[in-house]
Amino acid sequence: MYGAGDVRVEEVAEPTIQAPTDAIVRVTVACVCGSDLHPYRSKKAGERGTPMGHEAVGVIEQVGADVHDVAVGDLVVVPFGYSDNTCAICRDGFQTACPHGGFIAGAQAELLRVPQADGTVVTVPADVDPALLPSLLTLSDVYLTGYHAAFMAKVAPGKVVTVIGDGAVGLSAVLAARQMGAERIILMGRHTVRTDLGRRWGATDVVAERGEEGVAKVLELTGGEGSHVVLEAVGHMPAYEQAYGVVRAGGVISRVGVPQYEQAPVGFGSLFGKNVTLNGGPAPVRAYIEDAIPLVLDGTIDPGAVFDAEVSLDDTAEGYRLMDSREALKVLVRP
Amino acid sequence: MYGAGDVRVEEVAEPTIQAPTDAIVRVTVACVCGSDLHPYRSKKAGERGTPMGHEAVGVIEQVGADVHDVAVGDLVVVPFGYSDNTCAICRDGFQTACPHGGFIAGAQAELLRVPQADGTVVTVPADVDPALLPSLLTLSDVYLTGYHAAFMAKVAPGKVVTVIGDGAVGLSAVLAARQMGAERIILMGRHTVRTDLGRRWGATDVVAERGEEGVAKVLELTGGEGSHVVLEAVGHMPAYEQAYGVVRAGGVISRVGVPQYEQAPVGFGSLFGKNVTLNGGPAPVRAYIEDAIPLVLDGTIDPGAVFDAEVSLDDTAEGYRLMDSREALKVLVRP
Repeated sequence: MYGAGDVRVEEVAEPTIQAPTDAIVRVTVACVCGSDLHPYRSKKAGERGTPMGHEAVGVIEQVGADVHDVAVGDLVVVPFGYSDNTCAICRDGFQTACPHGGFIAGAQAELLRVPQADGTVVTVPADVDPALLPSLLTLSDVYLTGYHAAFMAKVAPGKVVTVIGDGAVGLSAVLAARQMGAERIILMGRHTVRTDLGRRWGATDVVAERGEEGVAKVLELTGGEGSHVVLEAVGHMPAYEQAYGVVRAGGVISRVGVPQYEQAPVGFGSLFGKNVTLNGGPAPVRAYIEDAIPLVLDGTIDPGAVFDAEVSLDDTAEGYRLMDSREALKVLVRP
Repeated sequence: MYGAGDVRVEEVAEPTIQAPTDAIVRVTVACVCGSDLHPYRSKKAGERGTPMGHEAVGVIEQVGADVHDVAVGDLVVVPFGYSDNTCAICRDGFQTACPHGGFIAGAQAELLRVPQADGTVVTVPADVDPALLPSLLTLSDVYLTGYHAAFMAKVAPGKVVTVIGDGAVGLSAVLAARQMGAERIILMGRHTVRTDLGRRWGATDVVAERGEEGVAKVLELTGGEGSHVVLEAVGHMPAYEQAYGVVRAGGVISRVGVPQYEQAPVGFGSLFGKNVTLNGGPAPVRAYIEDAIPLVLDGTIDPGAVFDAEVSLDDTAEGYRLMDSREALKVLVRP
């Protein structure tokens, strides 16, 4: 990506093993993330492009000398963050904050270098039904990011859950909340095609209104008390404002939309006065991925249904355009 | 209080029953709260004074027709917030957000009107040792506010806890964290008399440095990883900044100092990137008070040790001065 709206597919040098813990992965499927749209809309034009893409399923093509847990030929899911998965922070389940970790870049490509391969990638059966690859790909980021929101908010039976955002992460949060037993899930979104998938995945109410009107609607739906849990899957300030507007006293706002702000209201009038908990962050998908794979393989969940468009690697720019214009919910890229 | 630094003791009309759920309490002991110092330092001068004080132990002098659970002559602890204690929000344990609740005002007085008496006051044995009255008084607010911070942060054995602030709430948070099993408690404060009480109550380390130096010191003490739990008992922005500086990835910042700010950093660079949980708020002491009374009566805890000065009601202004100048940690007012 050279700047806002400027995505180019170029031939570059193949990635090589730079540290003995690296692996090189030949990408089978990759995709465009909602968070990729932030620079797509705002990145300053520059002379050097930035390698894009951080979600992939692929085949290990080469491993460094210190990689022992995966081997050439393995089919793996690559989480969007790499981590050693052995340090105290990783053992706490917060691999995205691993002091030896970082974020994957350049997955929208044929070949991808994955640092800390042993602590990062997770193997899936090499003979998996290709129809399941899109769902496995969502374990790189999107589904397990929605899951992380619900996990941090301790969604459970009896909790009213409101999901803000009908993008792929928001819909994934609906699916995860339902999996955790929530019976009442209010989805705030206005794109019927998307909210229909949300309903299929467990949303019991859809609120198309935004801002104060949307807040009033959710309060009405919850007998004036608000929602025990709010999963914020957008990242912009109006979504944050909706979140503290609809949350119940003592409730939780869990954010997984990457915040496009640093400062936000947290004082008496927003969070403090109502004893609201705010949490969330970059999803440590590595902590959840091993439990999720069997659910995909046995059909319990089908998170890959978020993909409603597919492009070849050469057409990646068109993939961005489709998502930016909301013509597509989420675009698969097949190198 | 007529304005910053202007506290006057005046004869006013006696409070009367205004709703059938009210009670009138003759105040045995009251006190000055750290939160009273905020207006003491900043309140604009006005022609009408504001009744001050929200912490009291006293004797029921009169009850409204709908008060059934307490009777004239009962000795009671009055929480700083009143609540019906029957609605869904109260049953969740967040009485300070009760839709029929509010905050007590005018406890620094001989007589005090308490709305929602049945849902608010808690009886203690009328023949209690008078030496225990200060500790029982702390259940109105200060000790259970510190307790609330630790409760919301789920303090438990094995968690490193950092307490920011060596005021009476901060020290109470130390005591509560120790009661919940924390073995490592770092107290950030610089007043030796206070931090000595903190050490007696369970602080294992005292960090006198503030700002970046203080953050560096706590990180050093925690092997670079930071503190699982941060209890913020100040309410000013520098304390908030210290909090997110010392918190461990995936950790919790629980605030009980009333925020003197509305906006604060919550984005990638502060909370989000590290998956930090932010919570806390006005302590629903009513939820904790019944469990705390026996611990005071049997001497398990002595939270009244925060009182290091006592004034008569006539000298209440002097009590404010003593706390504002930090000559006293917390001042008891005895009408």
